Parts: sequence; structure tokens; C-alpha cells
Amino acid sequence: MTAARAHEEARLARVRLTRIVEPGWEVAGRWLREFGPVETVRRIDEADAGADGPMPLPGVRAERWAGLLARARESPPPERDLARVEDIGARFVCPGDAEWPGQLDDLGDERPLGLWVRGGAGLRMWALRSVAVVGARACTDYGVRMGASIGAGLAERGWVVVSGGAYGVDAAAHRGALGAAGATIAVLACGVDRAYPRGHAQLIDRIAEQGLVVGELPPGDHPTPSRFILRNRVIAALTRGTVVVEAAYRSGALGTARWAQRLGRHAMGVPGPVTSAVSAGVHELLRKEGVLVTDAEEVVELVGEMGELAPERHGPVLPRDLLPRATARVLAALPARGVLSVAEIACGAGTSADDTIGRLYELRSLGFVERHGDGWQLTRQAIRSVFSDGGAS
Amino acid sequence: MTAARAHEEARLARVRLTRIVEPGWEVAGRWLREFGPVETVRRIDEADAGADGPMPLPGVRAERWAGLLARARESPPPERDLARVEDIGARFVCPGDAEWPGQLDDLGDERPLGLWVRGGAGLRMWALRSVAVVGARACTDYGVRMGASIGAGLAERGWVVVSGGAYGVDAAAHRGALGAAGATIAVLACGVDRAYPRGHAQLIDRIAEQGLVVGELPPGDHPTPSRFILRNRVIAALTRGTVVVEAAYRSGALGTARWAQRLGRHAMGVPGPVTSAVSAGVHELLRKEGVLVTDAEEVVELVGEMGELAPERHGPVLPRDLLPRATARVLAALPARGVLSVAEIACGAGTSADDTIGRLYELRSLGFVERHGDGWQLTRQAIRSVFSDGGAS
Repeated sequence: MTAARAHEEARLARVRLTRIVEPGWEVAGRWLREFGPVETVRRIDEADAGADGPMPLPGVRAERWAGLLARARESPPPERDLARVEDIGARFVCPGDAEWPGQLDDLGDERPLGLWVRGGAGLRMWALRSVAVVGARACTDYGVRMGASIGAGLAERGWVVVSGGAYGVDAAAHRGALGAAGATIAVLACGVDRAYPRGHAQLIDRIAEQGLVVGELPPGDHPTPSRFILRNRVIAALTRGTVVVEAAYRSGALGTARWAQRLGRHAMGVPGPVTSAVSAGVHELLRKEGVLVTDAEEVVELVGEMGELAPERHGPVLPRDLLPRATARVLAALPARGVLSVAEIACGAGTSADDTIGRLYELRSLGFVERHGDGWQLTRQAIRSVFSDGGAS
Repeated sequence: MTAARAHEEARLARVRLTRIVEPGWEVAGRWLREFGPVETVRRIDEADAGADGPMPLPGVRAERWAGLLARARESPPPERDLARVEDIGARFVCPGDAEWPGQLDDLGDERPLGLWVRGGAGLRMWALRSVAVVGARACTDYGVRMGASIGAGLAERGWVVVSGGAYGVDAAAHRGALGAAGATIAVLACGVDRAYPRGHAQLIDRIAEQGLVVGELPPGDHPTPSRFILRNRVIAALTRGTVVVEAAYRSGALGTARWAQRLGRHAMGVPGPVTSAVSAGVHELLRKEGVLVTDAEEVVELVGEMGELAPERHGPVLPRDLLPRATARVLAALPARGVLSVAEIACGAGTSADDTIGRLYELRSLGFVERHGDGWQLTRQAIRSVFSDGGAS
């Protein structure tokens, strides 16, 4: 069996497993590490088909095992799930794929089985230069203002804004990025074909067009309280840091910040009035080694410290020749000197503005372009590479 | 010459010097260290009386020296200054006095020559358990609210609130403490017989009755911009920590916090909305190792860490027999069990409420009593000492 074929089999097994086990379940993580996804699925199916016997996979209590077998029995073939998301322009990205964001591996056995991804941009490239902006659903006007301004400010500086698609601060952060012709990723606690909350159906569609909508749950799945909590670990792991804008004590947003700290990412907080209950959680974070930030500039100052890309960890920077053709066309639409708007670049590359935004932020992560206010230009390094006879940088 | 007589001479020389040199002038600090106050004054007077000759004190430029001699010539005899402040119930406290707060020595050559003190309580004892609460003159309602609530909260926990008597946050902090039947110290940048700002004449009188009004400047002297700045070092040095409630960039309150940091005291800040210009300075402080606090409880948690009293530094805890008689009467008015109000204690001790408050906070610093809400009671240690046959603890 070829390596490509083996990877395809593993992918199908992983898709299947997203129907059988809950996100972030360490026990399943150990099975995958020990037996691999294909063998894990085989053992589940065999146990389901066969008679009573010793449990073929370790670390799980009988009742839970029974529930798991029931879910395995009812789950559709993985090919059908893949076809189903293809209809809405989505795909399944898993470890081993070129698009897999390597930093999720920091989650160890709690690493997602894979991520369902809806939208045109490359998740891996986008996640390399991303920051989470999260906060209270029931936020104040101040929270909306700060979420939007930090979202927009990050986008204007070429950073990708990751949030949870919820009401309140999350929505403000997404909208801030969208409104600044920026890149944003919504990490959902349900299937990427579902809009949750319902009132955000349009927002989530818009994010899927200009940005990315991702999640661990298979198509059609509903969010649950524990899924929200586990979703937060993905937000924290995907990004270089988490900014909390308004959060009450014990809120989910604080959980994301704690995950960020545990994973060695920056945990940041935007202060507010001491007299506001939805700033109390942020202040608690800031008293526990969280870093106080007041604008996007300060966020970038902090997360940018990690340096541009970390090739030894995320793979080498792509030489120009290896860029996907459509991305290379966007790159080619930029002149040696001067700044162009997204619309101008889209025109030159013969594609849509949304597609252009996606590819520009990918090129940003690769060090080819940089954003200045509302326009984009080649980096010095890219000019050398693109306009030299030598070809690849 | 007896030691007492020598100390009196040194005191008169220091009083005289407060008329001749500006507060916190390092050069004069070096003179005092090298020659002592008496010899320093003698050299100045001799140079003033005599003909041109080499400068008898080092480190000062000719123009400044001439100005200094002119001030020496015009200054009244120190006895007159002392008599003048006695009329308003004030005194001059200087190094070597039992009431001198030893922690001011941390200022080195910038240590005050002495402090003019108006009010009944003992400065040294009060300063041992004190916290500065400072902030913007042009503060918002939020600043007033937080200044007042932290001032009151510290007073209720038996801590002395130190501030600068200014409009805005300072006044709120003083009023918070006064309103909670607490102890507060106003450190002025002018003579303690003056009310600055004018609009605070009543407030400052009230502080002098229930608390203490102190300053480095001799009676009648006016505040100047540089005197405000130098006053802040006294606030920082006198206290265990400085809480900044609202401060714009480059504000005086931030200067106080920086002094606190330099002197190894706690620098704390109360966060506010990022959108408020008078919180910008506080947030800057919090990004530079200042500690975020949201209420008096958190302040006490931090400054209390230094431990109750540090005998090796501030002198031994007084045994009960050595307490001033009036203070001993207040102590004697407290029962072995139970909590009394200030009014009840005052009645039992046969003195005024203001006087009682002053002595209670002194006894608090000495570990004899503790405050619970609006009442006071003996500490366990004091009960052993006061009601045992053994006498002194």
C-alpha cells in the first residue's frame, strides 16, 4: 500500500471517529497514538459485530464503551460525511495533511482527530499568524467596541483573528476583521454546516466566504456545553495568543486564556472598569500573569516577539515555484513597488476579493507580502525572489 | 553637651535649612551626611557674613550658592518657625526623633530634612501601616468612586490612607478614610499651615483633626510644580505601597508609583476603560510590573505580605508600660472580649473621637488592637499582655 493510500485510509478512519468519540477525549487520543486510527476503528467495529469478549481498547468503562459502540453502529460511512461537506465547500483536514496546523499537536492526546474546514484559505498558513480574540456573550457596549477595534487592528496588521462565532465579543472581533477586509476564523462547537447561534447564520456564512469556519464536530452535529468548553482548547492551540475582552468569573473565555497559558501561548486581557461584572474575570486573569493590552498594536508587539514563522516547527517556507497556481497569480498581481488595494489585486489576478484576501494572508504568513493600512505590498525579501532571475527565494 | 541638647541644636539647624534649601536636593543631603546639620548651617552663615572666599560647601554652582545665601539671610530664626506652627498645633519631626518614620531613610541623600506635622497622632506609628492612594486631579466619576471605596476599605481594615490632598482621586481617598472613621495623612507640597488647593481648606482642616497633615516645606511656603513632584517621593517612601486610581500619561501619580517601585514598595493600579484617557497611565503602569488591584482587600493582601511590623528596622514593639499615658487610657477602655465603637472607646477613655481614632491606629501598628468593620477589639496578643499579671508583653 502506498503512503498516500495509507493516509487516505487513516483520514477515513478519523472522519468516522469524529462521529464516535467526543472532541478532546484523552482516552481516544491514546488509542490513536498506540494503535493508529485505522486499527482503532477496526477494533470498535469488530467488537460491535462480535460476541461478548474482553474489551479490545483500554481505558474505558463498560457503559461508555456500550454508548460508543451504539454511535459506531449508527454513524454513516465516512465517504458520505465527506461528500456532504463537499456540497457546502468544506473539507476534512487531519494530521499528515499539508494543511494541518502543526501547533495543534501541542494538545497531545487531546489533539483533535481532525478539523472540518469551510472556506477557501489554507488553514495551516492562516493559523501561523493568528490571534484569538474572545469574550463575554453578554458583553457591554465597551466590550463590543474593544472586540471590534482589536479585531480590525489585528487584520490591518496582517494578523488572522480567531474567535468562537458567539454573540457579543466574538462577533465583534469577527466583524472587526471582516470590515477591515481582513482574515478571520470561526471555530465552532458544532458541525461546520450548522449556524450556531442561529442569529449568526449570515455572519457565519460571511466568515466562510471571506475567512474560514472550522470545527471538530461532524456535519449536522449540535453544540453542547462540554463541546463549547472543549472547542476553546482548539482556539487557544491554533493561535499565538488569546486576548480576552470582557469576561465574567468562570467564563468560557477565561478557560481559553488558561488553555493558552498551559500551552505556552500568550494570555492577554483588555482591562475595564472594576465596577463592571464582565471585566471581573479579565482582571482576575491579569492578576494571574495575564498581560494587559489596550490595543491591537500591543497585542502584535507581544505575539510578534515569537518571530516570523518557526520553520523547524511548521515546515520550511515555500519557495515561490511551489505556490498553488491561484496563489502565485495573486502574488504576480503585486508590483515591485507600491501598495495596492484588495480590489486592484483581485482584478489583476482575475479572481474575487474574498479569494484574494484568503491568498494574501497566506502569502503574508509565508513572508511574501505585508499589509499597510488598507493596502498590500511585496516584502523586500519577496521583491528579491520574484523579480530576480534566480527564481525561488 | 548632652545628647538631648545636641539633638535640639540639630533640630533647630534642620528647621532653618528647610527655609534655605529645596526639598529633596541631593547636594544638601550630602552636606548633612558629611558635616551634619549644625556645621552645614554654620558654614552657610559664615560665608554669608564673611568676605569672598572659597566655597565652604561642595557641589553647588556659584549662582545657586548666592541664591542660597540670600535665602539664609532672609530666613527667620528657627525658634520663630517652631512657635508659629505650635500655634496651629503642629510640630517639626526630624531624624533622631522618636516620631521619625525610619522608612524615609530609604531616600538616602534625598531624605527630607524633617517633616512639619499637624495633628494628634504619632506619625511613625501611623506610617508603619499605611498605603498611598493617589490619582488624577481631573478624574472621572469612576475615579472618585474607586478612590473613595479603596480609601474607606483600607481604613476599615486598620490601614492608614496617605495621599496628597489634591482635587480628584486624592480627595476621594482622604474622604473615604475620614468617612469610615479611619486614619488618613495628607502630604502637602506647601507649609502645613496653608490649605492647598484653597477649595480644600475645610478638608485639610478635617484631616488635621482626625488624621495628620504633613509636609517638608516651612510654614507659609507655597507649592510649586517641582515641589509637587518632590512631594511624591515622600508619599511613596512613607507607605508600604502606592495605589494609582486613574492617571493620564506622565501624571504626578505615576511618578509616585515609580518612586514606590524604586524604593522597593508595591506599585499598584486600578484598571479602567481603555477608552478613558485618565486610565491610560494606570494601564501603562500595569504593563510595567505594576500590580492590578480592584479593591482594598487585594491591596491589603499585597502590602500585608511584608508582615506585621519589622522590628529590626522600625524599632522594637513598645511594651504596654511604655505607651504614652493617653494612649494607654484608650487601650484600657477596651474590654477583654468584644468589639467597641470609636465613640464607646472615646467615652471610656475620656477623650474625643478624633483623638481616639489617632491612638487606635497607633495601637493597631503596635499590634495591640485590630479593627473589625466599624469597631475595634484587642488582639489575642494584647489580651495576654493587658490582662496577665506579668505586665509588659
